[in-house]
Amino acid sequence: VPAKSSFPFDIFSFDHNDRTPASRQVYNAIRSAILRGILRGGSRLPSTRGLSKSLGVARNGVVAAYDQLLMEGYLQSRSGIGTFVAPAIRASANAPGTRGGPEPTLSRRASAITGQPRFHRNANKLNLHPGYPETETFPFAVWSKLLARRALSRSDELLTYTSFAGHPALRSAIANYVAVMRGIACSPEQVVVTTGAQAALDILARMLLDSGDVAWLEEPGYVGARSVLLASGARLVPLRVTDQGWAMFDPALARPGLIYVTPSCQWPTGRTMWAGERLELLELANRQNAWIIEDDYDGEYRFRGRATSALQGMDASGRVIYVGTFGKTLFSSLRIGFMIVPVDVVAAVERMVEVTGQFAPLLLQATLADFIEKGHFAAHLKKMRALYAQRQREFMDLCREHLAEWMTVSASDSGIQCLGRFAKPFDDREVARVAFGHGVDTQPISQFYSHDEPQHGLLLGYGRLNQRDSQSGVSMLKRTFQELDAAGRTSGS
Amino acid sequence: VPAKSSFPFDIFSFDHNDRTPASRQVYNAIRSAILRGILRGGSRLPSTRGLSKSLGVARNGVVAAYDQLLMEGYLQSRSGIGTFVAPAIRASANAPGTRGGPEPTLSRRASAITGQPRFHRNANKLNLHPGYPETETFPFAVWSKLLARRALSRSDELLTYTSFAGHPALRSAIANYVAVMRGIACSPEQVVVTTGAQAALDILARMLLDSGDVAWLEEPGYVGARSVLLASGARLVPLRVTDQGWAMFDPALARPGLIYVTPSCQWPTGRTMWAGERLELLELANRQNAWIIEDDYDGEYRFRGRATSALQGMDASGRVIYVGTFGKTLFSSLRIGFMIVPVDVVAAVERMVEVTGQFAPLLLQATLADFIEKGHFAAHLKKMRALYAQRQREFMDLCREHLAEWMTVSASDSGIQCLGRFAKPFDDREVARVAFGHGVDTQPISQFYSHDEPQHGLLLGYGRLNQRDSQSGVSMLKRTFQELDAAGRTSGS
Repeated sequence: VPAKSSFPFDIFSFDHNDRTPASRQVYNAIRSAILRGILRGGSRLPSTRGLSKSLGVARNGVVAAYDQLLMEGYLQSRSGIGTFVAPAIRASANAPGTRGGPEPTLSRRASAITGQPRFHRNANKLNLHPGYPETETFPFAVWSKLLARRALSRSDELLTYTSFAGHPALRSAIANYVAVMRGIACSPEQVVVTTGAQAALDILARMLLDSGDVAWLEEPGYVGARSVLLASGARLVPLRVTDQGWAMFDPALARPGLIYVTPSCQWPTGRTMWAGERLELLELANRQNAWIIEDDYDGEYRFRGRATSALQGMDASGRVIYVGTFGKTLFSSLRIGFMIVPVDVVAAVERMVEVTGQFAPLLLQATLADFIEKGHFAAHLKKMRALYAQRQREFMDLCREHLAEWMTVSASDSGIQCLGRFAKPFDDREVARVAFGHGVDTQPISQFYSHDEPQHGLLLGYGRLNQRDSQSGVSMLKRTFQELDAAGRTSGS
Repeated sequence: VPAKSSFPFDIFSFDHNDRTPASRQVYNAIRSAILRGILRGGSRLPSTRGLSKSLGVARNGVVAAYDQLLMEGYLQSRSGIGTFVAPAIRASANAPGTRGGPEPTLSRRASAITGQPRFHRNANKLNLHPGYPETETFPFAVWSKLLARRALSRSDELLTYTSFAGHPALRSAIANYVAVMRGIACSPEQVVVTTGAQAALDILARMLLDSGDVAWLEEPGYVGARSVLLASGARLVPLRVTDQGWAMFDPALARPGLIYVTPSCQWPTGRTMWAGERLELLELANRQNAWIIEDDYDGEYRFRGRATSALQGMDASGRVIYVGTFGKTLFSSLRIGFMIVPVDVVAAVERMVEVTGQFAPLLLQATLADFIEKGHFAAHLKKMRALYAQRQREFMDLCREHLAEWMTVSASDSGIQCLGRFAKPFDDREVARVAFGHGVDTQPISQFYSHDEPQHGLLLGYGRLNQRDSQSGVSMLKRTFQELDAAGRTSGS
């Protein structure tokens, strides 16, 4: 047994100004000394009275620290003799501060996902990324009131859950909404609410495909869908979207287990799948016994006529799963999306939502149900449809007036973004890079291709642009093209 | 060209009381007739004036319906002649109402997950499930005020995001909290916020393991972890937890890629891993180059002394990932959990959160940060720790007084549930079934075993039980055991 005087009191750098309680500081110092091998198994500790005196802290703080260390197994007490470092404890090779040993690695699927292109919005630039709705016009006063009322209700149904498919009121509200607006035939039980459309896609990729199964993905197509399909281990086959439509009869296409499409407003081309193509796609899926995921990411914003009816409403074979979101109609950080699934799959999907944790907070679900039921959602949609139509017109006119020499922007009947195709053979990544330098953040479309030689252009979101922003965005793009012209930067030259 | 009189007007069952707009009713009727083959490709439609008159609806409603059908490709207009069903459209084999074709199937991993035992709380029974915190005491007035204030702020940082790792204020608040309370060494950048701890486990299972990799899972162990590990394709190997501790030196254990543990309060045994075992586990993981997931699902509720320090704080090799949740300290439907990850993995984890959509709504994240920063969280924890300690004492006393003949309930230093082991060889699923009939909903522990012959008992949550509920729960259990005794229902008899 070492003499008391040999105890290394310098392990304590006790600081009375530190807000950490004295007991915790004593505990931390002794524990750390044991872990670093400064106090070895069997060493005797000072008495609590002695240590209290040495450090100038209250004795009960030292007692509490010793008790905690005894309980966690760092110390042992021998009655009548004293307190000792537990004999079995020896400093670990892992002791903090002594990094060593091999580094563990990430899985191949994590590498596949992190290797996908990322569209990272930069807060300090004018944002022309697609998919961002205007939020200035959102009725936050109403939203905040509905939210506070639900939060105050203390209702047990909002605090724990008996179902993971979603709040019943929201499932009903969604079923009514999609029936009227998108021609979807479903009961509230077929609606499963998730933390956004991306979560729905992630669940579906894993539920509908095993590793090695074939999935058709539109080319060019949505990177978010590609990422979750890759993560599921699927073999991706390009379903080409051309000026003639979806090339679904390409004989090179391997037989699919799943077909992912955006028929209302193809991402990124903005194309709408017409009725005859839809019927052909359904027949083809039926013959090949494939699932179809219909991603309706912004089908609500149609400026000419009504929103097109969903593919889901034409399917009687229970193979189309419709995925929708409130991220584009309300605001993206709300994180509420949903899917409409065939009746016989509901229980399995609900289970997947539970196990993967992709379940939206009940408070927000209930508030959104109130927002829809009281008519605020329909009113907001109506207002936004008019606003976006106007913004599209303004943005198009500006592009035609100032950018026609370099880029053709085609008007679209739907959506809150449009596709700009280059009139000269620019490399769109370079255009985006130079534009970024001029203060505007854009998305090059070449990154939506993963098999074919990419087309080049920009997918331009105008939803958040007021007139002034629209003007400055277009003039920054003009300066970008002028700079590229001056430098002779077309890939042909 | 068929004569006007041959048009099947009976496709319209026009209802003036229906709130669906007239144009939508006309659109739906014609579209449906085309899809069902009643109107064939090439058939001529009545003029808009004629149809308007026949149906008694305003002409502009009929015009809008025709326009929509023209746009979607169901109809074609021949100038000066009339409007026709598009020739290429033929009724699909899939036409609604004519279900046919093979049924698509779910993936093997979906089957693996849906085949796991499910602990489904029933709203109409007294809930003795583990893991449910008391919510009566939660300061909803404060919460609701903080929430409404954030919702009204319209702050752009809450409406779109530039990071998917979480709201900066919440990441800071969590880093401070775990440093003080759990002895965790981390910077705010190492904190990644998710939609609950289950989502964190789901992300980690996919990021750290490829299909076929070995994961050690505690036996008995947490079913939620087992489900996501199975879904990731991992090969599960039992890390047995006995009265002697974690049997980590069992020579039968295959070399792991990942080790999942609950060291603060093992699920379901309630055991705490002592300091020497923790060091051994870290050394073992280092030797075998395995990841460790430390699931600290309710480490905050320790009644004797302080909460034990986390395993993460003893690890200097960057292989321990700590998973925490606010579901047990606040309320489960909040859906906010987090992980503390090594610095060099943060970017990949953030990307996974983005791609899988397991990102918690920013409004709730910011509100929670406010709740913590303003001291409400610490105050709530302190109050709840005292309340749960009292409830544990009351519940234990009642069990000892009334149930000792059939079940031994061991006091635990931590948690909001306790393990009841049977004094007679009952089958716990039968006990749970009979108890359910007597009005109380419990969890049999045999379902936490997946390899070994299970032990039988009940994992009893007392967190939500006031004195009266505690009394009625115990008396329902007593009647259950009496009924089973009377029927001679022990598996030994």
